[in-house]
Amino acid sequence: MKTLLLSAAGTLALAGAASAQDLEVASPHGDLVVTLSTDGAGRPTYAVTFEGETVVEPSQLGMRFAEHRGFQEGMVLEEKDRAAADESWEQPWGERRIVEDRHNELLVTFMDEEDERRRFDLRVRVFDDGLGFRYEVPKQRSLRGEVAITDELTEFVLPEADTTAWWIPARMWNRYEYIYEETPLGDIHTVHTPVTFELGGGTHLSIHEAALVDYSGMSLTLGRGNRLEADLAPRADGPKVKLEAPFETPWRVIQVAEDAPGLINGTDIYLNLNEPNALGDVSWVEPGKYLGIWWGMHLGTQTWGSGPLHGATTENTKAVIDFAAEHGFSGVLVEGWNEGWDGDWYENGDVFSFTESYPDFDIEEVADYARQKGVRLIGHHETSGNITNYEKQMEAAYDLYERLGVAQVKTGYVADGGELKRVGEDGVAHYEYHDGQAAVEHHLTALREAAEREISINTHEPVKDTGLRRTYPNWISREGARGSEYDAWGQPPNPPEHTAILPYTRMLSGPMDYTPGIFKLRPEAGEGSPPAYPGGEPRPDVRTTLAKQLALYVVLYSPIQMAADLVEHYEEKPEPFQFIKDVPTDWEESIALAGEVGDYVVIARQRRGGEDWYLGAVTDEEGRALDVPLGFLEEGRTYTAEIYRDGEGADWETNPYPIAIESREVTSGDTLDLPLAPGGGAAVRLVPAQG
Amino acid sequence: MKTLLLSAAGTLALAGAASAQDLEVASPHGDLVVTLSTDGAGRPTYAVTFEGETVVEPSQLGMRFAEHRGFQEGMVLEEKDRAAADESWEQPWGERRIVEDRHNELLVTFMDEEDERRRFDLRVRVFDDGLGFRYEVPKQRSLRGEVAITDELTEFVLPEADTTAWWIPARMWNRYEYIYEETPLGDIHTVHTPVTFELGGGTHLSIHEAALVDYSGMSLTLGRGNRLEADLAPRADGPKVKLEAPFETPWRVIQVAEDAPGLINGTDIYLNLNEPNALGDVSWVEPGKYLGIWWGMHLGTQTWGSGPLHGATTENTKAVIDFAAEHGFSGVLVEGWNEGWDGDWYENGDVFSFTESYPDFDIEEVADYARQKGVRLIGHHETSGNITNYEKQMEAAYDLYERLGVAQVKTGYVADGGELKRVGEDGVAHYEYHDGQAAVEHHLTALREAAEREISINTHEPVKDTGLRRTYPNWISREGARGSEYDAWGQPPNPPEHTAILPYTRMLSGPMDYTPGIFKLRPEAGEGSPPAYPGGEPRPDVRTTLAKQLALYVVLYSPIQMAADLVEHYEEKPEPFQFIKDVPTDWEESIALAGEVGDYVVIARQRRGGEDWYLGAVTDEEGRALDVPLGFLEEGRTYTAEIYRDGEGADWETNPYPIAIESREVTSGDTLDLPLAPGGGAAVRLVPAQG
Repeated sequence: MKTLLLSAAGTLALAGAASAQDLEVASPHGDLVVTLSTDGAGRPTYAVTFEGETVVEPSQLGMRFAEHRGFQEGMVLEEKDRAAADESWEQPWGERRIVEDRHNELLVTFMDEEDERRRFDLRVRVFDDGLGFRYEVPKQRSLRGEVAITDELTEFVLPEADTTAWWIPARMWNRYEYIYEETPLGDIHTVHTPVTFELGGGTHLSIHEAALVDYSGMSLTLGRGNRLEADLAPRADGPKVKLEAPFETPWRVIQVAEDAPGLINGTDIYLNLNEPNALGDVSWVEPGKYLGIWWGMHLGTQTWGSGPLHGATTENTKAVIDFAAEHGFSGVLVEGWNEGWDGDWYENGDVFSFTESYPDFDIEEVADYARQKGVRLIGHHETSGNITNYEKQMEAAYDLYERLGVAQVKTGYVADGGELKRVGEDGVAHYEYHDGQAAVEHHLTALREAAEREISINTHEPVKDTGLRRTYPNWISREGARGSEYDAWGQPPNPPEHTAILPYTRMLSGPMDYTPGIFKLRPEAGEGSPPAYPGGEPRPDVRTTLAKQLALYVVLYSPIQMAADLVEHYEEKPEPFQFIKDVPTDWEESIALAGEVGDYVVIARQRRGGEDWYLGAVTDEEGRALDVPLGFLEEGRTYTAEIYRDGEGADWETNPYPIAIESREVTSGDTLDLPLAPGGGAAVRLVPAQG
Repeated sequence: MKTLLLSAAGTLALAGAASAQDLEVASPHGDLVVTLSTDGAGRPTYAVTFEGETVVEPSQLGMRFAEHRGFQEGMVLEEKDRAAADESWEQPWGERRIVEDRHNELLVTFMDEEDERRRFDLRVRVFDDGLGFRYEVPKQRSLRGEVAITDELTEFVLPEADTTAWWIPARMWNRYEYIYEETPLGDIHTVHTPVTFELGGGTHLSIHEAALVDYSGMSLTLGRGNRLEADLAPRADGPKVKLEAPFETPWRVIQVAEDAPGLINGTDIYLNLNEPNALGDVSWVEPGKYLGIWWGMHLGTQTWGSGPLHGATTENTKAVIDFAAEHGFSGVLVEGWNEGWDGDWYENGDVFSFTESYPDFDIEEVADYARQKGVRLIGHHETSGNITNYEKQMEAAYDLYERLGVAQVKTGYVADGGELKRVGEDGVAHYEYHDGQAAVEHHLTALREAAEREISINTHEPVKDTGLRRTYPNWISREGARGSEYDAWGQPPNPPEHTAILPYTRMLSGPMDYTPGIFKLRPEAGEGSPPAYPGGEPRPDVRTTLAKQLALYVVLYSPIQMAADLVEHYEEKPEPFQFIKDVPTDWEESIALAGEVGDYVVIARQRRGGEDWYLGAVTDEEGRALDVPLGFLEEGRTYTAEIYRDGEGADWETNPYPIAIESREVTSGDTLDLPLAPGGGAAVRLVPAQG
């Protein structure tokens, strides 16, 4: 009862509290301003304006503990330090080689008004395209021993009027693999980050976090009115986080942009808020493209487990290696190579061995064969979410791969119950969220062990990306959203708008191993039926055009990109396959040129250390005629544009295959007209004329 | 990745596990059958069929603990006992005087296959219209000391095809006060119970719990596919529940009915699964109707706090008592009578005194005045969610009311942050969910303290009802959903379908103090504006017709019913007010006659110990012409039907006031035609001719 009344009065109380002790910090260009304060009850608060408009209303800060007095009210604010950065640094691989880091920093202390030794610091960094803040809790008498965080009180109070949100639900069994929803702000429930908003006036916001280390992942839940509240993944033993003071939280990040492409162009903030490379020389981390023994299992024509349809045989793998070598791919992923797939592995990750291969897969022979052909075998570790079983075997497993010259491992955390299984020393099983503190710790353990052996990790069913690839560049990619596999068996498969939402949501956080490149877009006889698919549904239609599959290689960034379809499907269509052969996966620069969340996106990227550019455009279920000015090209130079676009009559629903491939000469003064079919896309390679 | 594949295979594994050790128990009429089993991994499971059709697919049972080994796999099933009941018992007040309890019971043990001392019992009771089961965990060596439950593994796997759900979200700040959503099963997130489903074939299910004592409330969250999983409210210190073995959980209840009214007619299951009256003679618990100093505060024309608009003055109260006495009401509720309303009470429940009245409210004089007029003052305790402050003053507060002859107290747990504040002995504040273990304990403490003084409690912002009114008949009503107050300031107010959903969802759990009877359905000048509503919105239109307001007295059961509007608004419309004066609040029998969830409902009730019947019908935003057979009347007798129905042109949106009041002679062979306007309703009093 009386809820709205209270909400109105409560907001006034907060707003009215702005007082002499307010502290402000602005971005370098001055348009983004963060104000720290306390309200009438001494609760720490912050607020944000952008170009003079409120984008985050006064919002609470603080945290509660199980056994210790929390930081939530009766506190006073004091300035501690200010700093500024204007630097740049080089990525080993990424969307761009050189990352600029320009921000202003304010460090403050919130102290108990009656006991100034009870305190926490808040460090705020304001960039031109977003801000981050984190709690830094010093060692103090009132926080002795183990500290159990039961609630982080961080709020993000967004303007309510006409605010639209794009989100996937959190705290459900299936991690991040949901179809995105577009709703008014007031209709969201508990959501994963990045969660993206368009305010009534057109300003775009996205909320996420950076540097998730020794803490639990933050989801957001809708509180009273328009208050989004931090909702940390609980540990299996109850509290959200357990640690000891001193500690720091991950950075809470708010990206702010005038338009939707601005969010994509502002993602360096996540890297800048992470610690620099901790691994030293990482020249052994190798971007590239790969093929795999994988899609057949999703189609139901091969199996992970042994038997007549077993996919991971020596013979099958050599054939894929041959094709990979012929067409310039750097790797071949093989799933289902190891013992464990024949039992109820999805119920019991204990069954997996990470060192014993099936008898029909001679891993030594295959790895040698690949090496001779200039291709690397890509390793695979499906853990079924049993992180204890994986950690027990981890060193031996990575040792094996190191010896075989396997430089990349795809890991998997499919967990039947939706949670990771961790078995304590007492033998008691604990079930941990994929984004809980235990999972966060597990993934860093794996990364460090792998790095010692110069192995990179591509995590499926991962914890979300928070920019840790800066610190651990061997975290080369991950899943963490619905990928192509849903087009094999998803009921429903990914809708046409899915890849027109991902760039503005999931992709803001970092690379995704989406595994595009499906060329056979309609099911064939024998797919999606037993024995591989007991009880499964028939394979659905893929809801894209063929040209859109090519565009995804540019639109969805990953330093490793799979050509996910079967070799024979590429052999049938050599002309469009040429684009997959040509497109690089590591970039000098990336620019989002145009788009609207959920409608379409146009992105251009330049090859790292090269002069050629690549452009990708995808649309939702609506066809579009895009005009793309080519001002990003070097002025005065002529480029050959190799255009792969939807052909006459192409339509995701009725006719996905027509593709027009054509060449034109263009310069930076030209505008490229790109007709996109419903559910379609376009991929363009722009090669400068020599001389 | 691979999620649907796994889901399909996983389901098969469970389904295939039905084996020789399956144990069945059927309802007395035999149509509802529960099967207990274990799956291939030794996980306890149950499944339910109704009239030969699966209504709950094999679903997991079990629980996990923080420090002890859980009950989840490697278990074997053994029958322990069977029993049957065919009894009836009398309620002190209720929807019906005599409650039938007919069920078959099966008690089983699930034992660790390697250590039979590790075990839990499951007690299953199957009624003709639903079933309940609970875990009974005996004392055992492997569960010594404090047991922290981190997860109850109970699942409810419903058939997915075409299943529709009606639900409100759980684990959000605002307890239960949400507009209901109607979605496919697959689109629900985390939801409160009762949550109601219509399966593709038309069978209706509702899932809830009974006898929530010393445990945390159960919400449901959607797991993989169509698995609804128990999601207990966490304690502030992390785990879901803390207790010691032996212990019993609340009953997990599944109502099953052939049609929507069948759910309403099957709610005795919640009472039957609770313990009998623990209070002895409860003749002091008095159903009745009441007026109040309350709606003016919601309109913004009066205030809870002191000042020129203070509502709770001696003079104002006496005027309402006069009107109450004149028109046969038994009580007058006065809110804002006590010290504490002038500060930021919604932030800090410490401000409230429950024994000191404002200077302009002479509580002794008012209580005396009421008693002389044959009316009782109804007490009010707004705690602002600070349960520690309330518990400290509770004895003195109830002592005061006992001395003054106040026999009912409305309590309130408005909590600004959405959670209840509990302050430990160390001074550290803990914030507990409204349905967490601490809240459950607090409410029972209040009930017991009140019972010692022959006081009944009407809880607002309560924990949900789980039938505890059987054991504690002084828990006379509660809120726990959006009530009329949202029609004063809700943005949006309750939609027309709201009261056509409540009977099939929230009301299944027990009485609700909805506070109907709003006669002034459009805002007037001065309402919804400062000073009572700082920053508030203008008052919205109420989205019902006038006749529907009358129908709610029959449709929405509560042994205490408020006439919520201002005295002057009733004085303006004496003819429809007559129905409110006539309608009883305690019943000999209640029958849901017709309806569909979210569309409409028709309910008939007979006065307890009387011969007159009352019929209420409400519709959603659609107008309807209902034909209501009167077969529930005594055969061969003539009744005068006093019909209050929507008048010519009535419409919730454009013209809410037209009401037609007419009398007809009817018998049990007649069919009453009731035209309901869009957003309308009808109320009928049926009085037998004398002799």
